[in-house]
Amino acid sequence: MFELKGIYCPIATPFVNDKIAYDKLDQNMEFWTASKLEGIVVMGSNGEFTSLRESEKEELIRHCCKVIDGKKRVVVGTGSNCMDETLHLCRVSADCGADAALVVTPFYFKGAMNDANLENYYTTLADKSPLPIIVYNMPLNAGVNTSYELLCRLSKHPNIVGVKDTSGNIVQICQTIFNCEKDFSVLAGNWAFLLPALFLGAKGGTLALSNIFPNECASMVELYNEGKYDECRALAKRLIPINAAVTTKYGIGGLKVAMEYVGLFGGEPRLPLRLPNDDVKKAIREALEYAGAEVRA
Amino acid sequence: MFELKGIYCPIATPFVNDKIAYDKLDQNMEFWTASKLEGIVVMGSNGEFTSLRESEKEELIRHCCKVIDGKKRVVVGTGSNCMDETLHLCRVSADCGADAALVVTPFYFKGAMNDANLENYYTTLADKSPLPIIVYNMPLNAGVNTSYELLCRLSKHPNIVGVKDTSGNIVQICQTIFNCEKDFSVLAGNWAFLLPALFLGAKGGTLALSNIFPNECASMVELYNEGKYDECRALAKRLIPINAAVTTKYGIGGLKVAMEYVGLFGGEPRLPLRLPNDDVKKAIREALEYAGAEVRA
Amino acid sequence: MFELKGIYCPIATPFVNDKIAYDKLDQNMEFWTASKLEGIVVMGSNGEFTSLRESEKEELIRHCCKVIDGKKRVVVGTGSNCMDETLHLCRVSADCGADAALVVTPFYFKGAMNDANLENYYTTLADKSPLPIIVYNMPLNAGVNTSYELLCRLSKHPNIVGVKDTSGNIVQICQTIFNCEKDFSVLAGNWAFLLPALFLGAKGGTLALSNIFPNECASMVELYNEGKYDECRALAKRLIPINAAVTTKYGIGGLKVAMEYVGLFGGEPRLPLRLPNDDVKKAIREALEYAGAEVRA
Amino acid sequence: MFELKGIYCPIATPFVNDKIAYDKLDQNMEFWTASKLEGIVVMGSNGEFTSLRESEKEELIRHCCKVIDGKKRVVVGTGSNCMDETLHLCRVSADCGADAALVVTPFYFKGAMNDANLENYYTTLADKSPLPIIVYNMPLNAGVNTSYELLCRLSKHPNIVGVKDTSGNIVQICQTIFNCEKDFSVLAGNWAFLLPALFLGAKGGTLALSNIFPNECASMVELYNEGKYDECRALAKRLIPINAAVTTKYGIGGLKVAMEYVGLFGGEPRLPLRLPNDDVKKAIREALEYAGAEVRA
Repeated sequence: MFELKGIYCPIATPFVNDKIAYDKLDQNMEFWTASKLEGIVVMGSNGEFTSLRESEKEELIRHCCKVIDGKKRVVVGTGSNCMDETLHLCRVSADCGADAALVVTPFYFKGAMNDANLENYYTTLADKSPLPIIVYNMPLNAGVNTSYELLCRLSKHPNIVGVKDTSGNIVQICQTIFNCEKDFSVLAGNWAFLLPALFLGAKGGTLALSNIFPNECASMVELYNEGKYDECRALAKRLIPINAAVTTKYGIGGLKVAMEYVGLFGGEPRLPLRLPNDDVKKAIREALEYAGAEVRA
Repeated sequence: MFELKGIYCPIATPFVNDKIAYDKLDQNMEFWTASKLEGIVVMGSNGEFTSLRESEKEELIRHCCKVIDGKKRVVVGTGSNCMDETLHLCRVSADCGADAALVVTPFYFKGAMNDANLENYYTTLADKSPLPIIVYNMPLNAGVNTSYELLCRLSKHPNIVGVKDTSGNIVQICQTIFNCEKDFSVLAGNWAFLLPALFLGAKGGTLALSNIFPNECASMVELYNEGKYDECRALAKRLIPINAAVTTKYGIGGLKVAMEYVGLFGGEPRLPLRLPNDDVKKAIREALEYAGAEVRA
Repeated sequence: MFELKGIYCPIATPFVNDKIAYDKLDQNMEFWTASKLEGIVVMGSNGEFTSLRESEKEELIRHCCKVIDGKKRVVVGTGSNCMDETLHLCRVSADCGADAALVVTPFYFKGAMNDANLENYYTTLADKSPLPIIVYNMPLNAGVNTSYELLCRLSKHPNIVGVKDTSGNIVQICQTIFNCEKDFSVLAGNWAFLLPALFLGAKGGTLALSNIFPNECASMVELYNEGKYDECRALAKRLIPINAAVTTKYGIGGLKVAMEYVGLFGGEPRLPLRLPNDDVKKAIREALEYAGAEVRA
Repeated sequence: MFELKGIYCPIATPFVNDKIAYDKLDQNMEFWTASKLEGIVVMGSNGEFTSLRESEKEELIRHCCKVIDGKKRVVVGTGSNCMDETLHLCRVSADCGADAALVVTPFYFKGAMNDANLENYYTTLADKSPLPIIVYNMPLNAGVNTSYELLCRLSKHPNIVGVKDTSGNIVQICQTIFNCEKDFSVLAGNWAFLLPALFLGAKGGTLALSNIFPNECASMVELYNEGKYDECRALAKRLIPINAAVTTKYGIGGLKVAMEYVGLFGGEPRLPLRLPNDDVKKAIREALEYAGAEVRA
């Protein structure tokens, strides 16, 4: 059975003239599939899944699964506020051979997002989905948090296999790891707390940073498993500034700039997102250099 | 030209077996179109717009415009996180003869939702939309707020005609009214602060409460315009408990229960939303009776 | 019996070389006592009460009561996190002839500040205090909010006479006015929402702005009572920018700068507060000019 | 020179009839001074420092220093919103032979608590204080956070020796450890994240939990230093429920109940705090038993 572990890359979706640029995506994908990544997340937050129409989502899933072609595990971000769409995308993904579905908490009716409603939502979905479900806890964007008590209950469902926790709440992550079923995987959602999460028992991470540093991200898990903790701390420190630049500080616009600097195709995000200004670009460049990257152009 | 004023009802979308029940909708619509409402909002928050697939949205717009058939103004909630979908729905709505589009702030990438990005988003959209745009400020659900400074800049755009402000931030509402262009309308997004908003210069409201009390809601504007302030205060007080029950306290599940009690079709919301439990139902019933409604069954 | 109404000025405490400058205070007090203010609040937030030692507080109370000498009502901000100190200061204030005590919610142990604990706190205090208690709801600074349900229960206590609500939450203010005992007064805590609060039934306000514009603040209540609503709106609008400058935007440092500009003694606040920089000073000056003040130096 | 490391116990202050009960304190102190604790924090949050009058604070400092009598390090929580009081208490503490002062961020004027004002505040204080200063970052209670950038600047001051971080923000803790001066100590402020903080380089913790489990808390540091990570994780897990009960869940009321259960004097907290109800007491008892404590009565 599918074991959720290691580093997954939530890949950016490239746009040219506001259309998905599949040729650019394929170029980037060569880099990612040749790396030490465990898997690819199609249509994670960094894939701008909320900015895609339903027809584009289907097309993108089919394309990515075909291009990846078994070289890496594939997780598809099928979550949306419309459960029927989510379920449809789970089915499409299963047809295409994906390994699992990453499903963000519904994120509009915040007043109703209590544990009971979320439990009902996820178990109903998992009962019907042909793919294993990974809960995506993304309070920063969704404004909703999945408590560890909820995750513990969900971890008993045979078709719910793990959580990507982007909250950065280390106490919650700790409680989730200590109390959920043993075969339920916790993945850190950001490089900034991957290392302490691994120390507590996380199985890996799905990290925006791995768009540009897939091998360095994968190395962290290797070094950790080898007990090379001082090297882990040094690596963590070296990549913290660029990680902040492509996540909390400058978001997807920042990530796309950084991708260009390391030789990948970045391009522009869709509105409302935009590319950062020149001062921010300079800061991103410096963070890349601090990280030891060879910066182009 | 279209003048945005009076009470609009953001109608609930009825579901039977999780499908849109158009026959039930038509029954409810008869009640609303026969009332003193100024207009109907199709696919507002209470219409569970985020729980509909794109194809359902199109179908619902076409159906409602046909059924309303000029009896009331029609505003369509076309907002989504995908601007291309939003624009498409604006065009569909224009084809169907709708009067304006209500566009919620994008609500996923919260870190990027600063005034500059929101201004760029709304002006780009308004440039392309065949329908006038009403900004929908819904921080409770969206986790994003449109500042009055932003609204003042947007109010200068010829195709942005107003804001539905559900923040309840009376200082912001006051500043918006005092500082925006004179032909820019401010609508209160909740009964709870409709009255003070009117006193400051708001032109009306779009109110969940008007699903069940359309005439009472419309009366408030009439009474206010007639200077009958004590009657306004008494009316406000009488409906505050039921308003809280169908909005902040119990949400759409609460609204659908209340609709059943007053003889409309309510039905069940789509997941993740659910109907409330029996204790809550009893509280809703009591709030309806306090408001003076004849409660059935 | 004492009726809580009209405009109270929460006076700034002047410091020279970090000591309370009583001579400067007396000069300012002449201006305030000669104005149309209803009363003076000694040691409100603008009086930097949290920056004073207990011995200074006693001395300041005694001095102010003596100087005011019956020319205005006197309310003393006796609240602190130590109830024993609060009660002591209530007794000192009563000895000096003050009219009431303004008691902020305890503001450190936020996790314990539920309605039940706050109710127990205020009723215990009111039972022992020789002075009537005014609840001070200041969520912006205290991080604690008093719900309207709590206020309704407290309004039944014979020695709790009103609330200064600085939350700006107009729904809460409305519910408080509509549901508390009739002899319980609600005072708006900020100019920015004084007008809509009056329309709903507030009895007045205690306003930082009245340090510099006591007569204009008092005029709002007069104009409102005379039914001159358009003049009220115009006055509200004219003072909104300077009000923001001396409260939410630049705080007490901003207020002290503005005081200097209108000919009062401002001086420096105590650390951690500081005076604003030159750009902010310029903005304050402009806001004063917009308000129609004659700016000195 | 004084090196800040290991486990400090922020001791509860015992009250009988609302007065400090020194005899009870002395009994408890025997237990703490006989344990493996590194030091004692007098008047931390658990000491209800905000509920004490200034004269009580002085008396309590003198008493504790005398009773501890060099058996343990002594840190005094001298922080208050009044800098002059804070400085006075630093001097009293120095006279009594205390080792350092723990100074919470000022916590009332939240709008002014930016990095620049906090830097000015702490450096001014540290310049004048006869005792080394430990920054106390307690956002949960104070509503103010000290960023790692601020801490890095403060860490260069010769008289600022460390931070007690109770935020639980592991990314901030990590950045603080990685970027501050090498002789600047980071102490975890809660058992719930002590272990991951140690892994990242924290020097110890000051933990409410150590009131009842001083040796277990001290053992964590020992086990960690010996590289016994699996034992660390097991110990962390075993004490997480009781830790939550005496901190985030039930606060100081919960702590005082737990103290009684393990044979210490707990007593009642001062208002607004209160002892929890019987259901909560039962939950605390169960958490103690889960932790392996022998519960009395």
